[in-house]
Amino acid sequence: MTESEVILGDLVAANRILAAQGVVDAFGHVSARHPRADRFLLSCAKSPELVAAADIEEYELDGTAVNAGAPKGYLERFIHGALYEARPEIQSVVHNHSRSVIPFGVTAQKLRPIVHSSGTIGKEVPVWDAQHTFGDTDLLISNIAMGRDLAKAFTSANCVLMRGHGCTVAGKSIREAVYTAYYLEANASLQLEASRLGEITFLRPGEIEKVNARLTKGKRGEGFDRFWEYWCGRVGVEFKPTS
Amino acid sequence: MTESEVILGDLVAANRILAAQGVVDAFGHVSARHPRADRFLLSCAKSPELVAAADIEEYELDGTAVNAGAPKGYLERFIHGALYEARPEIQSVVHNHSRSVIPFGVTAQKLRPIVHSSGTIGKEVPVWDAQHTFGDTDLLISNIAMGRDLAKAFTSANCVLMRGHGCTVAGKSIREAVYTAYYLEANASLQLEASRLGEITFLRPGEIEKVNARLTKGKRGEGFDRFWEYWCGRVGVEFKPTS
Amino acid sequence: MTESEVILGDLVAANRILAAQGVVDAFGHVSARHPRADRFLLSCAKSPELVAAADIEEYELDGTAVNAGAPKGYLERFIHGALYEARPEIQSVVHNHSRSVIPFGVTAQKLRPIVHSSGTIGKEVPVWDAQHTFGDTDLLISNIAMGRDLAKAFTSANCVLMRGHGCTVAGKSIREAVYTAYYLEANASLQLEASRLGEITFLRPGEIEKVNARLTKGKRGEGFDRFWEYWCGRVGVEFKPTS
Amino acid sequence: MTESEVILGDLVAANRILAAQGVVDAFGHVSARHPRADRFLLSCAKSPELVAAADIEEYELDGTAVNAGAPKGYLERFIHGALYEARPEIQSVVHNHSRSVIPFGVTAQKLRPIVHSSGTIGKEVPVWDAQHTFGDTDLLISNIAMGRDLAKAFTSANCVLMRGHGCTVAGKSIREAVYTAYYLEANASLQLEASRLGEITFLRPGEIEKVNARLTKGKRGEGFDRFWEYWCGRVGVEFKPTS
Repeated sequence: MTESEVILGDLVAANRILAAQGVVDAFGHVSARHPRADRFLLSCAKSPELVAAADIEEYELDGTAVNAGAPKGYLERFIHGALYEARPEIQSVVHNHSRSVIPFGVTAQKLRPIVHSSGTIGKEVPVWDAQHTFGDTDLLISNIAMGRDLAKAFTSANCVLMRGHGCTVAGKSIREAVYTAYYLEANASLQLEASRLGEITFLRPGEIEKVNARLTKGKRGEGFDRFWEYWCGRVGVEFKPTS
Repeated sequence: MTESEVILGDLVAANRILAAQGVVDAFGHVSARHPRADRFLLSCAKSPELVAAADIEEYELDGTAVNAGAPKGYLERFIHGALYEARPEIQSVVHNHSRSVIPFGVTAQKLRPIVHSSGTIGKEVPVWDAQHTFGDTDLLISNIAMGRDLAKAFTSANCVLMRGHGCTVAGKSIREAVYTAYYLEANASLQLEASRLGEITFLRPGEIEKVNARLTKGKRGEGFDRFWEYWCGRVGVEFKPTS
Repeated sequence: MTESEVILGDLVAANRILAAQGVVDAFGHVSARHPRADRFLLSCAKSPELVAAADIEEYELDGTAVNAGAPKGYLERFIHGALYEARPEIQSVVHNHSRSVIPFGVTAQKLRPIVHSSGTIGKEVPVWDAQHTFGDTDLLISNIAMGRDLAKAFTSANCVLMRGHGCTVAGKSIREAVYTAYYLEANASLQLEASRLGEITFLRPGEIEKVNARLTKGKRGEGFDRFWEYWCGRVGVEFKPTS
Repeated sequence: MTESEVILGDLVAANRILAAQGVVDAFGHVSARHPRADRFLLSCAKSPELVAAADIEEYELDGTAVNAGAPKGYLERFIHGALYEARPEIQSVVHNHSRSVIPFGVTAQKLRPIVHSSGTIGKEVPVWDAQHTFGDTDLLISNIAMGRDLAKAFTSANCVLMRGHGCTVAGKSIREAVYTAYYLEANASLQLEASRLGEITFLRPGEIEKVNARLTKGKRGEGFDRFWEYWCGRVGVEFKPTS
């Protein structure tokens, strides 16, 4: 298989897997950087559960569809382009509104990793608020200026919460981005529950570093394959190990 | 297809979609205004999941079945008639007891939009209490006087919570009413979770206006079609874009 | 169909419906009074989801199997016998450990109806504690003395919570007992959520009376039939209206 | 069937049952002691839902695969070996990250049995923290020294919570270990809910003793068979009573 075919296969699987996990529902989207680094791949405007290979379009980093006759794209495709533009190492981006992350975007409570599996979310997830730069908006990232402002909030993080909206997650591969999006939601849910019981002991910085070191040890992506195989089984997609 | 056929198709789908979402269960109902504006369409007394086209009956706005031989109707059909009577722009009404909205009807906490997707619920959802006008009742809207009292509580809102009972949601189309009923429940669930973490930043009035402006921009109903397509897929109903 | 056949059909359906609702799981049981009032019908020791008509046995009110060769019965069959003995109007009993009721058995918080659908649980659900009469036990109702002590705690109530164990629900028909067991769990879940938001307005005594008056108005059992039809659909059992 | 065949059958079923219960997901594992007491049986590195009999390998107690050509094993197999080494009576071990137990590993709140079904978790579940002996790690039990340190934390308990990680559960049979892993999660969920309502009355020590005495009365394992039969039904595995 060519690199493009591998990416396309994982991107279609990612759409179905994120839907099965409840990370996306009618809304939300996932993209991958094109092997030609100045473009990205993203479905036309469709609920992820319904996305097939034929729905995937190529976009310039400014959000313009390469194919002039492409069907209508997601309004918020600028989230993806701006992140690929700002962060050359990023290969995949997930945007979603999953349930447990929302409360951490609208209160002063910081989302931090509570369990080793969620080490990839980083030490503390930044919160971006459209209000700060753009005043009253409909909160959607509907142009490249908003996309770039959001991308800036990432600095070197993997995830950003968006106040009154949802979150965006970036990864060095599609499998890593999906893994992090899943555990961002899981960690938020765990932190909501634990916060009932009193003060929480979060992972220490040194622990987070060691968790992330192991995940990227050995072959690239290997650390995420068990997770991917499990979810491929759940959505009926044939699993292929990261090559 | 005639306008009547389009409405009937969406109304049957709405029954199944609301059941799949858990917004209705054994109880709850959804109606649409008849193209002849002084009537409405509503299933006979049946759990929404079980409703087929043949179950839909025509009612006068006072709750009288047009067809004298119609099977027994929902006791609370007066909710629907009274709203169509009071609000000419309303085309569809959902009544339900979904889980997360109940707590906001029985406490002093106000339900307000926490996330852009729930902008259609309005700035603050009013609470209606049968007790205020009618004293001790079984809380059901079992006559047109109660229906009209409830309709008054809406003023210009899309949703009203009913103390010790559930909620009623109105929309300018069936798809909008189902969308709002779903996000009223979702927002209540999010607000319950967020309320654990401290003070909440709700959407600002200017943000709510912009969210709602976008949803009604362009072709009527277009903004709700992605949501509808996703849920049609989930209940096995063929999706047709709003014409 | 004979009265016995009607009862047997509803009792098998009740086992499957309670399992589908999550009110029972591997454990829990449901019985019906025999048309011969001094006996009751209950499955042999089996998870309710797996119960078929052939599993139903006749028991004396003291818990003795009528058929000497009957397979092993539930250890806690004394719950059922003691209630039929103490309360001639009771026709069906459900015993379960559903999730949301447990917290109200182990804390000082009283479980009270928060929404019209749960009016049948009564004004305030009593809590029975095996410790009071029997000291340290394994908490199971493993003899008729414990069953009778529990039955006393009902006085005229429909439900009793059992500290560190679960609950028992009684009804004037199988459909009513299943309805009440479902809404006892639902109300507990709602009350747990609402308790986060501040003081709760529960149903008033006059409202509870009117809710219950409507449910028993007209033909016996008619008020519970919509609920029953919906759940029969969910478990693939043919629905028959209460005759 | 030979003793080995019985163990193998129950171990494959245990993998599927724990997955169906949500106790394990992509991650987590379950083992059984080999009839030859100085070895144990554990799948190669695979999500439990996907484990078949052919995936089960034999390991020495120090975590070395007996078969030199065995596929890659779970990194954390040392959890299992160290427990079998330290506790001759233990026949099965489950390691998982189920949702409700995590909060009790990262806060000062102690997990204690709230309901008779969870008596096997013991009077209070100890918490082990890798930090105490090993400082900053990736929290995984990736060598036998960490496994032995964890095993020490059990003393005579059936369960240990692992800070920022999950939990480990031991049993005198596969069915008992799966039962306890399920009720450890269930009890944690109940305790989280009950903690909202005020002070909790936990099971008394004498009650816990009597609960556990009943479970081990009569034929070995009999007390866990109803639970096992129910879950075999749910995952489509033929049930065989404990012989």
